[in-house]
Amino acid sequence: MGISDWAAGRGRIIAAPENHLSTEVLRTAQRSRRGFLGGGAAVAGAIAALGAGRTLAQQAGTDSEPPNIAPWTRSLGAPVVARPYGTPSEFEASVIRRQSPGLTPQPQASVSFTPLQNLFGVITPSGLHFERHHSGFPMVDPAQHRLMIHGMVRRPVVLTMDDVLRFPSVSRVHFIECGANSGMEWANVAVPTVQYTHGMLACSEFTGVLLSTLLDEVGYDKKTAKFVLAEGSDGSALTRSIPMEFALDDVMVVYGQNGEMLRPENGYPLRLVVPGVQGVSSVKWLRRLEVGDKPWNTREEAIHYIDLMPDGRHRQYSIVQEVKSVITAPSGGQKLSGKGYYEVTGFAWSGRGKIRRVDVSTDGGRNWANARLQEPVLTKALARFRFDWNWDGGPALLQSRAVDEKGQIQPTIPQLRAVRGTRSIYHNNGIQTWQVNPNGEVWNVQVG
Amino acid sequence: MGISDWAAGRGRIIAAPENHLSTEVLRTAQRSRRGFLGGGAAVAGAIAALGAGRTLAQQAGTDSEPPNIAPWTRSLGAPVVARPYGTPSEFEASVIRRQSPGLTPQPQASVSFTPLQNLFGVITPSGLHFERHHSGFPMVDPAQHRLMIHGMVRRPVVLTMDDVLRFPSVSRVHFIECGANSGMEWANVAVPTVQYTHGMLACSEFTGVLLSTLLDEVGYDKKTAKFVLAEGSDGSALTRSIPMEFALDDVMVVYGQNGEMLRPENGYPLRLVVPGVQGVSSVKWLRRLEVGDKPWNTREEAIHYIDLMPDGRHRQYSIVQEVKSVITAPSGGQKLSGKGYYEVTGFAWSGRGKIRRVDVSTDGGRNWANARLQEPVLTKALARFRFDWNWDGGPALLQSRAVDEKGQIQPTIPQLRAVRGTRSIYHNNGIQTWQVNPNGEVWNVQVG
Repeated sequence: MGISDWAAGRGRIIAAPENHLSTEVLRTAQRSRRGFLGGGAAVAGAIAALGAGRTLAQQAGTDSEPPNIAPWTRSLGAPVVARPYGTPSEFEASVIRRQSPGLTPQPQASVSFTPLQNLFGVITPSGLHFERHHSGFPMVDPAQHRLMIHGMVRRPVVLTMDDVLRFPSVSRVHFIECGANSGMEWANVAVPTVQYTHGMLACSEFTGVLLSTLLDEVGYDKKTAKFVLAEGSDGSALTRSIPMEFALDDVMVVYGQNGEMLRPENGYPLRLVVPGVQGVSSVKWLRRLEVGDKPWNTREEAIHYIDLMPDGRHRQYSIVQEVKSVITAPSGGQKLSGKGYYEVTGFAWSGRGKIRRVDVSTDGGRNWANARLQEPVLTKALARFRFDWNWDGGPALLQSRAVDEKGQIQPTIPQLRAVRGTRSIYHNNGIQTWQVNPNGEVWNVQVG
Repeated sequence: MGISDWAAGRGRIIAAPENHLSTEVLRTAQRSRRGFLGGGAAVAGAIAALGAGRTLAQQAGTDSEPPNIAPWTRSLGAPVVARPYGTPSEFEASVIRRQSPGLTPQPQASVSFTPLQNLFGVITPSGLHFERHHSGFPMVDPAQHRLMIHGMVRRPVVLTMDDVLRFPSVSRVHFIECGANSGMEWANVAVPTVQYTHGMLACSEFTGVLLSTLLDEVGYDKKTAKFVLAEGSDGSALTRSIPMEFALDDVMVVYGQNGEMLRPENGYPLRLVVPGVQGVSSVKWLRRLEVGDKPWNTREEAIHYIDLMPDGRHRQYSIVQEVKSVITAPSGGQKLSGKGYYEVTGFAWSGRGKIRRVDVSTDGGRNWANARLQEPVLTKALARFRFDWNWDGGPALLQSRAVDEKGQIQPTIPQLRAVRGTRSIYHNNGIQTWQVNPNGEVWNVQVG
């Protein structure tokens, strides 16, 4: 079975609980969607290193004749508001969220992955934002939706969406990453593409009310109020405990995403966003906030989203997503069209603040060089890095390593395993390695 | 005829060339989509000024009983990848681009407007980005698309999309505003809603190649090469001359918008983005760049997109979009549900750099106070401002006034008219006034 079958949903991974893939190794390659990695006719065989004295334009476009007049230049196009709400070109139909076939027994308690290899910049299109549902996604009527704030507060309230929209608002760009992202890499499973290794990751401009604003309104005792329970209104009524120091810092009660109302899959009409913390805490379809003096130890924080340590104990409430990065191009399943210039690019992020630096290695971590960071670099948001690489046509091992403003450095997989063992699912922030073979094929491998 | 008819496309505006609306005045109101402006049952009649001692939560949510369990909490939701590419909730079906009925004789040479009143933050969802087509929008096959760079260059080239994607890239957030935006306000025409007064405006994270990178690759003589002609591959083969100082500064050849490939309506697969300059220069479906020693004086720069001055002369090549702002909520056609707290919010932008400050007046410009600016404020991008307002229930005149980092101050309409007269279509950056009546209705008016 080739990756293309798998990606198209025809393949099969042995079912396993909670995002833990089997050890089945799928190592084959598909040609990239992007022709520049797939051997476009205009450039195939003509690529040489920039340093060898040929310019990129010389490498690329050697035809100086005017192109033929395209059929769409000789005809009338579609009118305005042909699509009152626009959608992507029909030629981009392969750029979609994908499910891991067989990953979960039920598609309502499952995951779909963001196509990171197809993204540009740092904003994830809302239509491609990964999904993690525990009981499917509901179509909530905002006129009927309510948010109750109660518990150890002075003035419990039940708010309508109209009420929530009356409060002073903020907009901030933040990443959301599932705690189980890259979970299959713990066991040396080479998942074929970056969509599946790191695709439970997205970044959006969120708009809403600071949770601290709402807590000030209902009133609470600073000495006793230590946690806030958030509950979703989906069928699973998912619950998570948020420590008060997070709640009062930058947690948002969100209705807007990338300029418009949240999408149904991402919590419409109201969700929590807990910046820098594993995605499960950013409770979707938010219906209830309860203030209390200790964590609730709910199902989703006692049985799941815990780390099984080498000594057999469970590490609970390890919620921050630590400093991490990944190269999205070239990445697994893509194919370079020949030696020459490539822009190596990807994402870096940290749950503890801003990314300070990203290093890239093309030789498996022996030598490192600084990548460029797209400005502005925002706190607890994806940072886009770019790195100029002249591929000499030989074997290469591409890696990225992020450093955040707290000085935290992304570890290697062996360094992580030394502390965490191999039985974890969650919180794998290890350095990802992509192997480039002389034929241009890119594979997911582990080194060291 | 009410605004609701007009907005739904059932109304009629007398046809006029090039976005110049007739002087028909449409002054009636519709209830806002957002209930918080439309009198939600939970808050109607209970709103009081925050300063009067009642908290917002007290004003808003007086019901402390737990809400009923919603039907979607008692059922299984939709599975992951129910929609491989997600779309908005069915409850947001009214948030769409709209055309002005009768504005143009042909819907292929026309405009649709962004629903600014529904936006959050600074990113415009690509599906809501306004349209301005001169010959409709084509569905371009990226495998067949070519970009020719020729004229006064050393190495003319014809590039495929694969070639373009090979070059080093950048991502930057910029606004695009049609030069004719707010054009109907010159003649004291009170267009009813902000979607129609200012909706030829959007802001996106664009990804592509700096034009300077491509010009370096093809080579040009710095002494003689003074302009670049850009030509689209749509049926109108729209052409504009770009001064070389703009081309070498921050002009981008763009394929990515808000994280994915451009949408067909916005130039898929390749467009120019000329930051800070009127939208027509950001040529869509870009097929040709020609380097020359003088501007081409093409149809779209000789007959259209010129300013008719009071002395009867045409001002040509006035391309920069000057400092401007507009309040998007409360705005025309919305209705406040009663006195009390409102967050006044909107956009500010300047073609000359960053926004330094936005002032808000609630009394028609007699008194001004600083609004909050959403961080980070980016150059030649929309800036979101917010302002706390306690409405006393009396008549009010809401205005915003932007100042950019060059010290340019947004003028009043009378100040603009003193210089430009009343026969212009383009480049109206005057201060917008929304009148709030004691019954809560918000109208488009002009003062002074």
